[in-house]
Amino acid sequence: MKAKKNSNKDFLLQIGQKIRFSREQKGWSQETLSFNSQLHRTYIGAVERGERNISILNLKKNRRSTRCSDY
Amino acid sequence: MKAKKNSNKDFLLQIGQKIRFSREQKGWSQETLSFNSQLHRTYIGAVERGERNISILNLKKNRRSTRCSDY
Repeated sequence: MKAKKNSNKDFLLQIGQKIRFSREQKGWSQETLSFNSQLHRTYIGAVERGERNISILNLKKNRRSTRCSDY
Repeated sequence: MKAKKNSNKDFLLQIGQKIRFSREQKGWSQETLSFNSQLHRTYIGAVERGERNISILNLKKNRRSTRCSDY
């Protein structure tokens, strides 16, 4: 069960890194992304660190605001 | 706000249809997918009908069990 937990954590971290990368590519702070995607800044931080299991609708908000199709 | 709600609903429905399609391609009932993905059968039904905002980890479970890379 431990291994599975880790693989989920790794997966969330991968998603988080893609989100961070696409944000930084636009030169945006978490605050700017927060404003544009209407997600809370601390929530974005937690998602980028792989601490939150983001839902598909929030992922869509995020993608739409950065116009990123990489995740 | 109504239009946005609809577009979210449409988006969830699109995801749901892809999930249903990949399940049916394998000839699986919702029960079989439920068993293989460790998600509840009624939850899978609700996701397929676009009624639930699936999280990225549950989407991964689903994809992994149907070995589908289409969503």
